[in-house]
Amino acid sequence: MISASQSEFIERLRAAGQARYHDRHPFHARMHDGALSRAELALWALNRYYYQTRIPIKDALIVAKSEDPSFRRRWIHRIADHDGVAEGDGGLALWRRLAMALGVKEGDLDDPGAILPGVRRACDSYVELVRSATLLEAVAASLTEFFAPALMRQRLASWQKHYRWVPHEALEYFRIRIQRAEEDAAGALELVIALATTPELEQRATVALVKKADLLWQMLDAIQGAADANEVSHASPPQ
Amino acid sequence: MISASQSEFIERLRAAGQARYHDRHPFHARMHDGALSRAELALWALNRYYYQTRIPIKDALIVAKSEDPSFRRRWIHRIADHDGVAEGDGGLALWRRLAMALGVKEGDLDDPGAILPGVRRACDSYVELVRSATLLEAVAASLTEFFAPALMRQRLASWQKHYRWVPHEALEYFRIRIQRAEEDAAGALELVIALATTPELEQRATVALVKKADLLWQMLDAIQGAADANEVSHASPPQ
Repeated sequence: MISASQSEFIERLRAAGQARYHDRHPFHARMHDGALSRAELALWALNRYYYQTRIPIKDALIVAKSEDPSFRRRWIHRIADHDGVAEGDGGLALWRRLAMALGVKEGDLDDPGAILPGVRRACDSYVELVRSATLLEAVAASLTEFFAPALMRQRLASWQKHYRWVPHEALEYFRIRIQRAEEDAAGALELVIALATTPELEQRATVALVKKADLLWQMLDAIQGAADANEVSHASPPQ
Repeated sequence: MISASQSEFIERLRAAGQARYHDRHPFHARMHDGALSRAELALWALNRYYYQTRIPIKDALIVAKSEDPSFRRRWIHRIADHDGVAEGDGGLALWRRLAMALGVKEGDLDDPGAILPGVRRACDSYVELVRSATLLEAVAASLTEFFAPALMRQRLASWQKHYRWVPHEALEYFRIRIQRAEEDAAGALELVIALATTPELEQRATVALVKKADLLWQMLDAIQGAADANEVSHASPPQ
């Protein structure tokens, strides 16, 4: 049972996260309006892949923070969701296929030097935030997933309308994440509610979520900046 | 294929670990000779449980150190081996059953204050060693598992002979670990060989293994010390 004060906390948390979530970033607006070139989509997918590669690492750090086997059992599937249970399986492999369908060279995916410095800084800051945070803060930071399914749905609809040259199967990561992110966010929210037992802890959880949302935003700032600097072509040859 | 210099390294590593492994600790000698009281076995099982609870934490830290999804896939099962995939399942639950069969109160298993300070220090040092180590060193430290199956076999045989009051099913953890430790050690050794690409790295791996072996030894020193101080009864009422 959720108490009245817990349900107020959930609302504050949700409002704070929503206000900073990167779905409203101008780069996403352009993406959803069909205004991005193929090169810009590739730039985004390559740089976002670096973020994806940080997820299993930060989730392993979260598992290591818990003294409770039942918590660890609940969290650990997130690592396999991205790493897969076999080669070519899992979220990272799906993202690689997406990036390559957008024209990213496979070698660039494994080259840290190919990632924009601002993106690397934001992603590495997220891992360091999780490494140094309490379990509550680290779990709260993951709650941007709460807003991910709506963004994924919007992205799927917009890509199928505006970027029809992208093969249907390349979008599989987005499809899979809609349901997984919903489940993961619901589970993480339960944990945050259970751990945030004082107003001060509620505040620390909210701050962690805001910091995480800001890091996602900063990644898009860096990508937008590189696109504006004409580091990638704005021409969009649909092959 | 293992080169000649790699096979020399494996021999040096094995010799260094074997020389310090706690199978030759006087407390183990007494255990295997059937000289421990029921209270001493309970003291050992309670304190060793704290070590068991550190294993999934240090393994999650090792997973977080790797940039390679295929390494993480190979390592992550170790966490589930101890935490189980459901409540009451896995190595930790088996160890709790062993400890309770020896007379440990369940509440003491969850009370950090019930653990001997020297044991806690040794176990916490192991987690900190893994946290601050390179991936190579952290994996090398796990190689005490190389010597575990022989110790487990000896323990099983000796307990079945000398401590016949211990229920057969309470020894399940030892039975399960014989095979798992063999597989885990073989996998970890492959990884250490692959990562230790210079004489300096070979030396660092060897030092990490020796440090880990020393921590296991220190745990038994602390347990032996508490037993000697008559903190537990030497009488052995077989109920």
